[in-house]
Amino acid sequence: MPEYDRILAAIAREVAPVVGQGRVADYIPPLAAVPQTRFGLALRTVGGEEYSVGDAEERFSIQSIAKVLSLALCLRTAGDDLWERVGREPSGSAFNSLIQLESENGMPRNPLINAGALVVLDAILAGHPDADDALLAFVREAAGTDAIGYDLAVADGERATGYRNRALAYFLKSYGTLRGDPEAVLDAYFRLCSIAMTCRELCAAFTFLATGGIAPTGGRVVSARQAKRLNAVMLTCGVYDEAGDYAFRVGLPAKSGVGGGVVAVLPGEYVAAVWSPGLNDKGNSLAGTMALELLTTMTGRSIF
Amino acid sequence: MPEYDRILAAIAREVAPVVGQGRVADYIPPLAAVPQTRFGLALRTVGGEEYSVGDAEERFSIQSIAKVLSLALCLRTAGDDLWERVGREPSGSAFNSLIQLESENGMPRNPLINAGALVVLDAILAGHPDADDALLAFVREAAGTDAIGYDLAVADGERATGYRNRALAYFLKSYGTLRGDPEAVLDAYFRLCSIAMTCRELCAAFTFLATGGIAPTGGRVVSARQAKRLNAVMLTCGVYDEAGDYAFRVGLPAKSGVGGGVVAVLPGEYVAAVWSPGLNDKGNSLAGTMALELLTTMTGRSIF
Amino acid sequence: MPEYDRILAAIAREVAPVVGQGRVADYIPPLAAVPQTRFGLALRTVGGEEYSVGDAEERFSIQSIAKVLSLALCLRTAGDDLWERVGREPSGSAFNSLIQLESENGMPRNPLINAGALVVLDAILAGHPDADDALLAFVREAAGTDAIGYDLAVADGERATGYRNRALAYFLKSYGTLRGDPEAVLDAYFRLCSIAMTCRELCAAFTFLATGGIAPTGGRVVSARQAKRLNAVMLTCGVYDEAGDYAFRVGLPAKSGVGGGVVAVLPGEYVAAVWSPGLNDKGNSLAGTMALELLTTMTGRSIF
Amino acid sequence: MPEYDRILAAIAREVAPVVGQGRVADYIPPLAAVPQTRFGLALRTVGGEEYSVGDAEERFSIQSIAKVLSLALCLRTAGDDLWERVGREPSGSAFNSLIQLESENGMPRNPLINAGALVVLDAILAGHPDADDALLAFVREAAGTDAIGYDLAVADGERATGYRNRALAYFLKSYGTLRGDPEAVLDAYFRLCSIAMTCRELCAAFTFLATGGIAPTGGRVVSARQAKRLNAVMLTCGVYDEAGDYAFRVGLPAKSGVGGGVVAVLPGEYVAAVWSPGLNDKGNSLAGTMALELLTTMTGRSIF
Repeated sequence: MPEYDRILAAIAREVAPVVGQGRVADYIPPLAAVPQTRFGLALRTVGGEEYSVGDAEERFSIQSIAKVLSLALCLRTAGDDLWERVGREPSGSAFNSLIQLESENGMPRNPLINAGALVVLDAILAGHPDADDALLAFVREAAGTDAIGYDLAVADGERATGYRNRALAYFLKSYGTLRGDPEAVLDAYFRLCSIAMTCRELCAAFTFLATGGIAPTGGRVVSARQAKRLNAVMLTCGVYDEAGDYAFRVGLPAKSGVGGGVVAVLPGEYVAAVWSPGLNDKGNSLAGTMALELLTTMTGRSIF
Repeated sequence: MPEYDRILAAIAREVAPVVGQGRVADYIPPLAAVPQTRFGLALRTVGGEEYSVGDAEERFSIQSIAKVLSLALCLRTAGDDLWERVGREPSGSAFNSLIQLESENGMPRNPLINAGALVVLDAILAGHPDADDALLAFVREAAGTDAIGYDLAVADGERATGYRNRALAYFLKSYGTLRGDPEAVLDAYFRLCSIAMTCRELCAAFTFLATGGIAPTGGRVVSARQAKRLNAVMLTCGVYDEAGDYAFRVGLPAKSGVGGGVVAVLPGEYVAAVWSPGLNDKGNSLAGTMALELLTTMTGRSIF
Repeated sequence: MPEYDRILAAIAREVAPVVGQGRVADYIPPLAAVPQTRFGLALRTVGGEEYSVGDAEERFSIQSIAKVLSLALCLRTAGDDLWERVGREPSGSAFNSLIQLESENGMPRNPLINAGALVVLDAILAGHPDADDALLAFVREAAGTDAIGYDLAVADGERATGYRNRALAYFLKSYGTLRGDPEAVLDAYFRLCSIAMTCRELCAAFTFLATGGIAPTGGRVVSARQAKRLNAVMLTCGVYDEAGDYAFRVGLPAKSGVGGGVVAVLPGEYVAAVWSPGLNDKGNSLAGTMALELLTTMTGRSIF
Repeated sequence: MPEYDRILAAIAREVAPVVGQGRVADYIPPLAAVPQTRFGLALRTVGGEEYSVGDAEERFSIQSIAKVLSLALCLRTAGDDLWERVGREPSGSAFNSLIQLESENGMPRNPLINAGALVVLDAILAGHPDADDALLAFVREAAGTDAIGYDLAVADGERATGYRNRALAYFLKSYGTLRGDPEAVLDAYFRLCSIAMTCRELCAAFTFLATGGIAPTGGRVVSARQAKRLNAVMLTCGVYDEAGDYAFRVGLPAKSGVGGGVVAVLPGEYVAAVWSPGLNDKGNSLAGTMALELLTTMTGRSIF
């Protein structure tokens, strides 16, 4: 096994000059208030060893990272029916674009862009009277801790300014891709994106993707086949329209959020979670992406 | 002056085989209930002579034709400020497309597509506490009659199913192009599109575009310059993405609606209004378009 | 009749501060060498009176203006078959874009954008062994003078650098919209765009569009119906993606070229031709457009 | 090690009903003449064991599969300079689309779509007087056999009908992304796509991608890092706009061609090559794709 302690420390040293660069998401006050100088990195092996460096114990808004968890819940509950109304192809365009959605007749390109995540929540809502509870219960089950919750200040901020997501929801409704009440789906969506976690908690919550479906607690979260497929979706669709570059430079399935977090998985080996709020021009954490590239370079291991 | 009586009768005979063809808009029950066999045609000269044939005295839902009237009110009230947030170019794509709107950063291509009409209403709402009253007053002033009103069953139907227009409104809001409350703008929009008029009433209401701004009552509706410019906007933007074909075949500024109505103007000469609910694949009245083409062919007069 | 002499002089005074502004087309040396300070304006009434101001007797490269003349020849010869492979709608995008062409399955939006003009020439070539001679003969017939010719230095420059037009031609060939040899069509195209004329000559050559088809010599160039339709195509498609703005501000059918020339027609009244090499960001002459707007404002006459 | 013999036989049985379905590429006679009922599958482990079933020893036109080999040669020779004019993102649209190319200012989305492959060849041509020889030498070196060659009948067929690729080349030239002579690049391109190989030869030629860069002969083809990165590019860009679905269903980096071949790599384990001419609606081999999905399902191994 690589000396992860030493490697994480080396990564932290190397990315230090970049921490504080990039653009912090500032469309709602709680995100704008996060100090740009934060950097945290945690790694958890499939055997349960944990390593971390920097601000790995500070909670941040995981934002779109949560879309992998809602997708996992949806697939576990509803199975493959979802794929009749959501694609699995990389988008190649902005995460909240309506152009592609219209030119593809209202079928979101994949479940990790905003439009697709809305349909995933619509599918969850169809089976759960209270999607918020179901989602939170699932996240806590995956992470093996009840300490995780919604950040309602963030959710309220999203709801107040989320005109574009509201446009997406009604657009999906106009095509019939979204079947339920758009406002209920939007509520669940803004709540989902507000989940706050630490890098360490993220590693735990995504462990099932490195272990063929098993949580740190030993419980099964999804099937081995579903875990593989979630990794595949992350690799091709997890980092907005930077999927090819991530595969090329990092070489791991990963999911990012505008809060500056990124989770990456080396199946059979580990989950890594990194956080630094400054974003590159694709909306992915600048220092976080660099850290993950260094991780696979220094360990000499990726999925390729 | 051409023998309009004879010409209108000849037109009615010639289009008769086409009346009843095409697709009737059926997205709301009040539109779907209109008999497909209706055909009415009226013409009003700048001197006030009126001619008509067929169902020219039956009210129908004028739908998007009303957008010319809201634009006229907006220009009269707010002047040229509107052009800072709405373009004047033909769209070349569907009237309710979001693609163009996104690729042009939230600025509607012109004021006669849905997105542009929403911004026009937003501008009107900014100056009028009760836009519905202001709009109706303006329409009655232009037409010289108080008999015209909203069809609330149509407005309710539009509101209940108007997901795509709702998406447009929130999308415009996300860009800041729409400044006020999207729901208030949508209410005004659904109301505006529900106005019911006869072909004869439409000729009266659009007379100011043939007379350099003067209503049948003799009152000034807009300036001569504004009347010219409204005609220019109609010619390039009035018939969805069939503008070039209309100019080529009909040769008159015109505005159509999905209810099957079309109004056309020969400046200095006349206004013609035609109605037949069957639509061609561009969303313009099939028999109505043919009737207007025959009108300019038989009279040998167009703007070209 | 307006006092055109006085009006043209007033226009020249008013646009003088703008002459020399804008961007001169410099993609080939002969165009780049034209002094930016040139400004010429000529007007010819249907009665044959001629007025001019500035550099109205200096030849310049008419470029895309010639596309109206090749279209006229094509319609005269081949009739309406052309419309089976070329549309009549405004493009709403750049004159040499391939995007629209691909999304519309290889059918050019209209005959005045580059793709459409190539198909027009392909149609002419199918009927004329030597299209160059046929085109030049037609232009001379319309203008009533044999003094007009190709500028071979310009044609050679276009041919050497015309990669994008070459791409368009092969793209059209891949769809079968272009039927003959792409290289032969390109040769005719580069030759066509190289025609050099003065403002006065342009007024003569386009007179048939103001007279219902009759040249200054009294000969018929096209039918009255074809003349009307050519004006309609110019109005909706003649000034790249600025058609709506031209209709709004100028109110006349017009065709522009990157050489800085613009021809405009008021049917039944006059043809005006203006030239000034500085272009606006849509590719139309900056001072020329302003001059035409002043012309319709000062005379109080447009087609609307 | 899995019992590949038994697994390949089981795969052949299971796909048999699908062999003969789909659409065979027929745009040139040599491709159209291939019997639709062919199916071959070969697998070569990093240790050199070879397994095969069906028509695995029959040569076929590898078409776009060759683009991985030209990319490998380009990276070995010219290093990372290529990425300044070619992207690394999945295209999400047809392999020969010009839309994306224009909206991204002439920079091909990735080196495996046609536009990107043309730029790769342009880069190779800049360094090699005779690119055809260099490419063939590289392919033979990677495969460890001199028996591989161009199929000139195929190359001639492509050249005679390749209007769209010719359009792409001149379009790239118009942006300056392609620096040399478009005709020379096209010649090399049509030659490259004509290479004929068997499934067994393909396994050998792609072995370096499973071994960290080492050919079956023991010679180094590219660096370990380059091999990883080539796999990443294949995973996100190798199967036209079906990348996400391939990752989801197959879970291996893969490259397909319109001749019906597909090569897939499990790094550290094996290369598999499959051939069956019937294509699905994305242009990938129907039976071949099914075979690869069965391979990772039956072995329980993928990169995820």
